[in-house]
Amino acid sequence: MGEFELIERFFKRPARRAALGVGDDCALWQPAPGMQLAISSDMLVEGRHFLSTVDPARLGHKALAVNLSDLAACGAQPLAFTLALALPRADEAWLGAFAQGLLQLADAHGCELIGGDTTQGPLNICITVFGEVPPGDALLRSNAQPGDDIYVSGTLGDARLALDVFRGTQSLDSDAFAQARARLEQPTPRVALGVALRAIADAAIDLSDGLLGDLGHILQRSNVGAQIDTHWIQTPTLFHEQPAGVSPLLSHLPLTRRLDLALAGGDDYELCFTAPVEQRELVHAAAWETDTPICRIGRITAEPGLRVLDAQGQAITRRFAAFDHFA
Amino acid sequence: MGEFELIERFFKRPARRAALGVGDDCALWQPAPGMQLAISSDMLVEGRHFLSTVDPARLGHKALAVNLSDLAACGAQPLAFTLALALPRADEAWLGAFAQGLLQLADAHGCELIGGDTTQGPLNICITVFGEVPPGDALLRSNAQPGDDIYVSGTLGDARLALDVFRGTQSLDSDAFAQARARLEQPTPRVALGVALRAIADAAIDLSDGLLGDLGHILQRSNVGAQIDTHWIQTPTLFHEQPAGVSPLLSHLPLTRRLDLALAGGDDYELCFTAPVEQRELVHAAAWETDTPICRIGRITAEPGLRVLDAQGQAITRRFAAFDHFA
Repeated sequence: MGEFELIERFFKRPARRAALGVGDDCALWQPAPGMQLAISSDMLVEGRHFLSTVDPARLGHKALAVNLSDLAACGAQPLAFTLALALPRADEAWLGAFAQGLLQLADAHGCELIGGDTTQGPLNICITVFGEVPPGDALLRSNAQPGDDIYVSGTLGDARLALDVFRGTQSLDSDAFAQARARLEQPTPRVALGVALRAIADAAIDLSDGLLGDLGHILQRSNVGAQIDTHWIQTPTLFHEQPAGVSPLLSHLPLTRRLDLALAGGDDYELCFTAPVEQRELVHAAAWETDTPICRIGRITAEPGLRVLDAQGQAITRRFAAFDHFA
Repeated sequence: MGEFELIERFFKRPARRAALGVGDDCALWQPAPGMQLAISSDMLVEGRHFLSTVDPARLGHKALAVNLSDLAACGAQPLAFTLALALPRADEAWLGAFAQGLLQLADAHGCELIGGDTTQGPLNICITVFGEVPPGDALLRSNAQPGDDIYVSGTLGDARLALDVFRGTQSLDSDAFAQARARLEQPTPRVALGVALRAIADAAIDLSDGLLGDLGHILQRSNVGAQIDTHWIQTPTLFHEQPAGVSPLLSHLPLTRRLDLALAGGDDYELCFTAPVEQRELVHAAAWETDTPICRIGRITAEPGLRVLDAQGQAITRRFAAFDHFA
C-alpha cells in the first residue's frame, strides 16, 4: 500500500469546515472573523509516551486527546487538526484501528482532520491542533493572582498507577488495573470545562508532566507562589457524588505513595486552574454544567515557591520529582 | 538540560505576529481578517529524508523549506510555524546549529516560530506551517485545464544526483558534488514565485517525490492528462542566462540517466504548475520579477494519461518510478 493510498483509505473524509482538506499541498481554511486561533503541537513517541503493546484505537484517541487537552487549558474550542505519522510499516489492521480511535474522538469534539503527512520510520505521531477563542478570553499560564484558589479537574494518579503496574513496581487487581489503564491510554481532554472557565478562571495549564511540575509553570510565568494542601490526597473527595482530587484507585496505598502519584504522577491530562475566591460559585457552576468533577487543592501566594502542606499544615520538605522528557 | 530549558534556550524568541508564542499550552494568533489560512505539515525522518551525517544547520533549513514549499505550491504567504522535535539526546552543539539554520530561513520569509514540542526519541522533525492567501486565489492541484502549458521552476535532478553519490552509485567531481549536495540539503522554497502566480496559473504542486509522480497528482485531481516533452532534458535551457529545466550538473550523463533524474528524481522542491497559453507573458513576468528561472515542459491534454515524448515526438514507454515512502 502506497503513501497516497494509505491517506485516502484511512484518513480522508469529506471536508466540512475546511475549504480544502486532505489531498492538496495545503489545507485551506478560513477562521471565523474576529476570533483568535489557539494552536498546539504534540509529538508522541513509542516507549516514551505509550507502550508498544497499546491498543491502536486507544493510541489514536490519546494522540488527539493530549492536543485537545492543550486547547482546553487555553479555553479554546477545537476546530481542526493535522496528523503527521511515521510508521515502521503500513499495517492495515493497525491503521484502521488507529484511525477509528482518532476520528471518533475528533468527531466527538467537532474537530476536523484537514491535512498531514505519512512516512516510514520509527513509530511517531505528531498532531497539530487548532481551536478558536474570543480575543482576550484565552486562559494563560501567566495570569495567576495572589489569593487565587487552585483547582484540579477529575482525579489524579490513575495514569501513573497503571504505568507502575506495567513496569512491575505495583500490583493491582484486574478491575482496578483496567480502570487505571483506561485513564492512562484514553485520557479525557477537559474541553468543555476549559471553555466554561473562560471568563472565570485566571490561569490554567493541563497536567501532562505531574501536578507540581505543571503548576510550577504557572507560578513561574505568573511570578507568584503556591501552597498546596494534601487533605484531598489523604481523604477521598466527592464532587456531586463523583470522585474528585486523588484517584479512588490509590486508596489502598500508603500515604507517601498517594502523595507521589497525585502530585508528580504525570499523564493525567486534567486541568489545573486558578480563580479568585469570589468566583467560587461560578467555578462550581462551570464544573457542574460541564459534568466535570473538580477539587480545590490550595492557594496562590504572593511569596514565590511551591509549598506542600501536610495534615497539620506543616510544609513537606521531601522532593517530588516532576516528569521531564530529558531528565 | 531539561525539555523546558532546551526550548527557552534555542527556540524562544519574542513573539511578533502571535499574541502569545512559545511557552504556554497553545500559541495564540489572530489571522488577518478576510484571508484564508493555508496549512501544511511535513515530518522528516533520519535515513529517509536526510542522512545521519547531514550538517544540522542545513537540516534545520530543509525541515522548514519543505513546508514552505507546500505553501509556495498554494500561492500562500508564510506567516508562522510550529516545530515538534524528537531527539535521541539533547546535544547543545547540534541544537544550536539546527536552530540557526531553521530560524535563518524563517526570518528570510517572515515566518514566526509560535510553538511546538520537544521529546526524546529517534530523530524526527515535524513542522506545521501556516500561510495566508486571499479566498479563491489559492493554487490547487485540481484546476489544470486541457491546453494549459506545464512549467517547472529552477532545475531538476540535482538532489537525486547528490543522493546517488552518497549511495555510491554515481561519481562526481568535488565542485559539482558540493553544488548538488547543497540542492539536496538546502532546497529553495519558491515562495515568491508561488505568490506571483496566484492569479495567473491554473494548478500547481511542489516537487518532492519526482516530477512524473507529482504531476500525476495534478492530472488525477484535475481529471486530465499531459504530454511532457524532453527537449529541455536533452538540451540545457536558459532563462535570462540562468539554467532552467534539467540541471547543468547532469550534462555529462547519458540521456537515459538524465531522463531518470529529471523526471523521477525527487527532493527538488521546485514548483510544477500549469497556466493557459494566453498567460505566457504574465508567467514569464512573474518568474522574472521573482528572480526564479522557469522552463516550459509540456501541455495538459483532455485525454487522460501521462505521455513522455522523445526528440522525435514518439512516446517513451519505459517506466519512470516515482518515489513513494511506502513503495
